Amino acid sequence: MILGKNSIAGAWSAEGNVVFKTFNPKLDQENPISFVEATPGEIQRAVTAAWEAFKIFRNMPGEKRAAFLRAIADEILALDQALLDAYTSESGLPQGRAIGERGRTVGQLRSFADLVSKEDWRGNTFDAAEPERKPLPKDDLRKTMIPLGPVVVFGASNFPLAYSTAGGDTASALAAGCPVIVKSHPMHAGTSELVASAIVRAAERTGMPKGVFSNINGGIQAGVDLVTHPKVKAVGFTGSLAGGRALYDHAAKREEPIPVFAEMGSINPVIVTPDALSKRSGEIAKTYAGSICLGTGQFCTNPGLLLTLKDANTGAFVQDLAQQTVALEPQVMLHPNIKRGYDSKESSVTSQSGVQLIGKSEGALKPNYAPAVIATVSGAEFLANPKLHQEVFGPFSLVVQAKDETELLAIIEGLEGQLTGTLIAEENDNLDLAGIIEALQNRVGRVIFNGVPTGVEVCAAMQHGGPYPASTDSRFTAVGVHSIKRWVRPVSYQSFPKALLPNHLKG
Amino acid sequence: MILGKNSIAGAWSAEGNVVFKTFNPKLDQENPISFVEATPGEIQRAVTAAWEAFKIFRNMPGEKRAAFLRAIADEILALDQALLDAYTSESGLPQGRAIGERGRTVGQLRSFADLVSKEDWRGNTFDAAEPERKPLPKDDLRKTMIPLGPVVVFGASNFPLAYSTAGGDTASALAAGCPVIVKSHPMHAGTSELVASAIVRAAERTGMPKGVFSNINGGIQAGVDLVTHPKVKAVGFTGSLAGGRALYDHAAKREEPIPVFAEMGSINPVIVTPDALSKRSGEIAKTYAGSICLGTGQFCTNPGLLLTLKDANTGAFVQDLAQQTVALEPQVMLHPNIKRGYDSKESSVTSQSGVQLIGKSEGALKPNYAPAVIATVSGAEFLANPKLHQEVFGPFSLVVQAKDETELLAIIEGLEGQLTGTLIAEENDNLDLAGIIEALQNRVGRVIFNGVPTGVEVCAAMQHGGPYPASTDSRFTAVGVHSIKRWVRPVSYQSFPKALLPNHLKG
Repeated sequence: MILGKNSIAGAWSAEGNVVFKTFNPKLDQENPISFVEATPGEIQRAVTAAWEAFKIFRNMPGEKRAAFLRAIADEILALDQALLDAYTSESGLPQGRAIGERGRTVGQLRSFADLVSKEDWRGNTFDAAEPERKPLPKDDLRKTMIPLGPVVVFGASNFPLAYSTAGGDTASALAAGCPVIVKSHPMHAGTSELVASAIVRAAERTGMPKGVFSNINGGIQAGVDLVTHPKVKAVGFTGSLAGGRALYDHAAKREEPIPVFAEMGSINPVIVTPDALSKRSGEIAKTYAGSICLGTGQFCTNPGLLLTLKDANTGAFVQDLAQQTVALEPQVMLHPNIKRGYDSKESSVTSQSGVQLIGKSEGALKPNYAPAVIATVSGAEFLANPKLHQEVFGPFSLVVQAKDETELLAIIEGLEGQLTGTLIAEENDNLDLAGIIEALQNRVGRVIFNGVPTGVEVCAAMQHGGPYPASTDSRFTAVGVHSIKRWVRPVSYQSFPKALLPNHLKG
Repeated sequence: MILGKNSIAGAWSAEGNVVFKTFNPKLDQENPISFVEATPGEIQRAVTAAWEAFKIFRNMPGEKRAAFLRAIADEILALDQALLDAYTSESGLPQGRAIGERGRTVGQLRSFADLVSKEDWRGNTFDAAEPERKPLPKDDLRKTMIPLGPVVVFGASNFPLAYSTAGGDTASALAAGCPVIVKSHPMHAGTSELVASAIVRAAERTGMPKGVFSNINGGIQAGVDLVTHPKVKAVGFTGSLAGGRALYDHAAKREEPIPVFAEMGSINPVIVTPDALSKRSGEIAKTYAGSICLGTGQFCTNPGLLLTLKDANTGAFVQDLAQQTVALEPQVMLHPNIKRGYDSKESSVTSQSGVQLIGKSEGALKPNYAPAVIATVSGAEFLANPKLHQEVFGPFSLVVQAKDETELLAIIEGLEGQLTGTLIAEENDNLDLAGIIEALQNRVGRVIFNGVPTGVEVCAAMQHGGPYPASTDSRFTAVGVHSIKRWVRPVSYQSFPKALLPNHLKG
């Protein structure tokens, strides 16, 4: 049962008097439960408890933190249909997606459990003493990683499970030994509360300090209060550029600045070569129609920009892509606000000079359902107009037709930072693929060859994050086991007797 | 011969009309050469050239960058006595120190050359494809590190070689494939120019693009212009909290924020246990007198705070420490401004309520020579007065006498972030060493057992950097081969044909 309360260090709490409801976009109506926003006092309690918990949690053996993470995974699965119902009613996403995302969430928790059940994830580094070295002896030095402190995680609107309450940020921070305070996403506060209850049960079952986790309902001010609290030491965020940048600015202005890992917007350019088009135009159109509309286009890796060289095949490809895209059944968006944002950005782009609308889903759509849109523009117009570079969050893609390879490269080099860049080409392509890849890799975090950017594998070699504004710190990934590096810092021990070293540095 | 000019992309340039001279603190007079500050146009030229060079430099094989670094080391040694003379006349530091620091500088350059002559420093990570996996196949993913772009390095006043023009920041950034623009420290512009000339000769000899290095003379505005230039992608700084924070703030306010690695002030607490004092008070006093006065106390790891438990031995130890410290011959400071800062901070601390001056070098001192000072205060006064926590840059240490172990721990836990923390104790000490180490390691980057914090070994297990305000990003080190991680970011390649992968990812 969803209570509509905050979860503060293991206890339900609802001291405030500001309430809100979540919204079922499919039914176009509010969900019944009222959620109470946390008061400044409740936020203070959550952070204080997290700080006290940190002193215990950071020193627990990795195997204990691993048991906690595994118990969270089990408790999430035990929520069963109640969780799937909350998820679908608060996001409009289908049950199949809920099940898939739950699997990903559980898988992430378990992969971090595996990671920290041994201590080699800390990148332990050893320098042996050289007492006879001239002119000065060398001391024994051993370096490891220790956690930063309490971490605030902001739930993402588009992934109510995998990037939210017990998502990758929370899993990696807990794995590192950092207590977590989640600011739940107001669009899926019920899903967040259920997951929070699972985390609290797991914490109790595995003997964690109570302050190890809290779940806060609230708006912008609650987020700012959390990010600016002196005992908060890092922030994870997935969402809009405006939101991520605002949090980054607040964190940078603190007396003690703290790192903010904000994974923000991206248009995920896809370069399609003439050779690829001449050989498999239909297949590319079909694959990309699916990728553009996946999850109603609400993936951060959604391909919002297709970049081709204008030639005899381009016109037919654009038409085909538009037909295949509008042929797909329109889907509902996460929330009326998201739908409004989509309409506004889509019309802002398609009304720019030189932009030609090629296809748009036809007929009357139910409220909150999004028409898929394919538009096209010349390379010159795209280069000249930064408004065409903005993300249109939804099932939209702009096909840019460059007049030659030089213009193509100029467009790539002029792009803002991106999460991904994709190259659709023949292996023995007539285009200079090396040059394109070189340009692309300097603007993105992940380069894909003959695939789609949607679908972010959870694995060690994954980089999810890219140059600003794709993320605020391109040196870290938000997905995969390396994402734990965001929440730790190195500490060296010099000339230590073995008995006083942490166990993993005694070797 | 020192020209007093800027080195812009391999050419000497002096278009400005603002000039300054360096100062010989030992002779208490200006050095003869006039240095011309760079104009905005020269700064723009340096950054533009760095950006163009970046496109070539980042793709050079590691062995070529290694050859460049080794050539820099050779060219620095070839400067011979001219460099030592510039160094000593601009810093007041003795020739022996110049030779030692040159050795460290050359050693750093060569260790980065060794590092990048192979490609495993990039932390290459491989995930094999699983085409048969259900429900979805897994793509091949390979992750490596690529350089961020042009880096601006600010020379440090206290290490004209090892933390300046060709110091650790420059060596690691060049090793990573990032062109470097140095903003030379105005106190040793001649030393910087000579080192710059060595770098330029090395670049020519080894076929580097001209924009790979520039050396800019200038004041605060030149620094701000560099840090806020859109084509600059990261900043390295060693110096004061005020200076480092100002640069951090400028970088954080950019449209595209960039990382600033500022290594700033620290008081480097040393905890001395009663057991250690009862067994070897004299030896500790002697060792610490030397550490406090090393380099006229102008080391960022200088032990500015000694923390003891007040007991029967404490009084004698403080007296002994003061005697041993003032018995050392007073040394000259780097510059009259540094000396004025020392006097002002020292008297600000010693005039605080409860602070007792125990020893101060006596007699008339030559201009710019610093008296060593030992003062003491109770734990309660220290806890209550943040003014006592500030760094006094010079041969100064404050001995804090805590009344009990609880107060000792409270003092440690209340400390601002520090580069180092030292524990002087017996291995079978009666104090709870584990508790002290636990508290200490959460405030510092490096913990030392029965040693001194001065002396920062250049090795892989070294952590030089700590929680703010010791540095702006505690997740990275400024010393040792891992410092290269500051200038790179990961990029993943998905489903790539081998022919199109970087060579080091083909395996």
